[in-house]
Amino acid sequence: MINEITSFNHLKTSNLMEKLIINFTPTGMIPTKDMTPHVPVTVNEIVEDVHKAYEIGITMVHIHARDEATGVPTYKKEVYADIIAGIRKYAPDLVICASLSGRNFNTLDKRSDVLHLEGDLKPDMGSLTLSSLNFNKVASMNAPGMIEDLANVMKDKGIVPELEVFDVGMINFGKYLVKKKIIEAPLYYNLLFGNIACAQSNLLHTGVMLNDVQNDAFVSIAGIGNSQLMMNSLAIAIGKGVRVGLEDNIWFDAERTRLATNAELIERIHVIAKANNRSIMSPTEFRKEMQMEPGHGRYGRVYS
Amino acid sequence: MINEITSFNHLKTSNLMEKLIINFTPTGMIPTKDMTPHVPVTVNEIVEDVHKAYEIGITMVHIHARDEATGVPTYKKEVYADIIAGIRKYAPDLVICASLSGRNFNTLDKRSDVLHLEGDLKPDMGSLTLSSLNFNKVASMNAPGMIEDLANVMKDKGIVPELEVFDVGMINFGKYLVKKKIIEAPLYYNLLFGNIACAQSNLLHTGVMLNDVQNDAFVSIAGIGNSQLMMNSLAIAIGKGVRVGLEDNIWFDAERTRLATNAELIERIHVIAKANNRSIMSPTEFRKEMQMEPGHGRYGRVYS
Repeated sequence: MINEITSFNHLKTSNLMEKLIINFTPTGMIPTKDMTPHVPVTVNEIVEDVHKAYEIGITMVHIHARDEATGVPTYKKEVYADIIAGIRKYAPDLVICASLSGRNFNTLDKRSDVLHLEGDLKPDMGSLTLSSLNFNKVASMNAPGMIEDLANVMKDKGIVPELEVFDVGMINFGKYLVKKKIIEAPLYYNLLFGNIACAQSNLLHTGVMLNDVQNDAFVSIAGIGNSQLMMNSLAIAIGKGVRVGLEDNIWFDAERTRLATNAELIERIHVIAKANNRSIMSPTEFRKEMQMEPGHGRYGRVYS
Repeated sequence: MINEITSFNHLKTSNLMEKLIINFTPTGMIPTKDMTPHVPVTVNEIVEDVHKAYEIGITMVHIHARDEATGVPTYKKEVYADIIAGIRKYAPDLVICASLSGRNFNTLDKRSDVLHLEGDLKPDMGSLTLSSLNFNKVASMNAPGMIEDLANVMKDKGIVPELEVFDVGMINFGKYLVKKKIIEAPLYYNLLFGNIACAQSNLLHTGVMLNDVQNDAFVSIAGIGNSQLMMNSLAIAIGKGVRVGLEDNIWFDAERTRLATNAELIERIHVIAKANNRSIMSPTEFRKEMQMEPGHGRYGRVYS
């Protein structure tokens, strides 16, 4: 009987009372002003949307930079620097994760550009997609060597990887990187569901992936398009975190009658969280869990 | 009660008595003579290994061509033509599937080169990997547009796609192609387990994928490296087909003390199949199931 209780404590559902991580994804690479006027694309718009979200309550923000003139995604650290400086003026504690996506520019130099920001401009985390995959229209190349190179740059800089997982097997590659000591605990995963050639937004795929993820890892769950609300709500119900924002879904309703704002999407998460007795994990609490200090990377690292 | 029996008949386990498809993969792109002297790489070696396998008993063969001088993978239809002609001399009924892999040459012209062979040289099937993915060392790019283009060339030619699935989400892309009428039933899938960033060789991943595959599709199961025997044996136990050969695994034993020959691997499949009361599906039976005629593509097509 004692054994049963003990083993129950090790079930993944045992962290029901864990605080809710809200990973806010305001922009992404796809939404344009033509698709929705609410997507923030300039530095000022992104800073302002993150400010609103921060006041409602979020744990971290996953930012993509856009060229100010064209609105097209850019890897340039100068644009990231402006966004990060803007955010840190009002939210010095907020955990900031920069996208290292190679969808539009796939060299190590470009993908790691933002990782070379220093001091207060240094991002706390960088996204690390754990395999190549297909999105709806295009392939996203993340060859094994590129993933290791990006992870090694992050390790040198004390920047923590945001492990991005779109299908079951990518978790196995995450475990391989741990085994090779290229990444190390505490780990943070985004599990993303609903891309056409990736894991789907259903309980079987979600359950298999949660079963595979390390027990002590932090996990946020995202649903692409119409499945965002369902997957976020499911995550809140089972004690996991959420990734939410216009990057993944531009509509407020499944019928697609009304375009959402980022603030509305986050406010809805708060309503569901409150009714589920889940309190939001603060940026400072998340920093402590993930062993990160503002602008300084992980504890124990040589700061650059 | 009648309803229960009826629905039981529709369970995936109801085809326990289905004949066993043996998809023989003698060569692949990775094994070299330095790794194992038993891998067939020249036209003559491949033709001879397929001959031996055909005499033991196989349903189909999945061929990769190599440059005669260097042993490096080639897309060239002239080399495929020599292999196909050589095989059809002694095995005119054997179902021949040509690899359309883009791992080393990723343009539509090169990847579809072999699909332009005509008459007796035309392959019955062509491999179609349903997403981009990572192998252990390299990325394999199969962008959505490339997959559709390859499938459309095959459709024009009456060549049947061999749907290659390395992770859960790829099955969803197969369903999307069916919905768009780019591919159509009867469908044939290879489910491949054990690549480092793909679905792993375990029952949970296998079960989820079999649950997602169309009920009436033909499925062969492959395990990479040490898991080949386990995954093949599992497939035989549950009524599915096997993909087997040196392409996926060069060792006879898990301890890697003895290099296998293709003939030995197939003979072992026969032993397990016999003990499981599974008889081998003949090439002619498979042609009938898949609506293929030798050298003529699917029934009802305009032959080119």
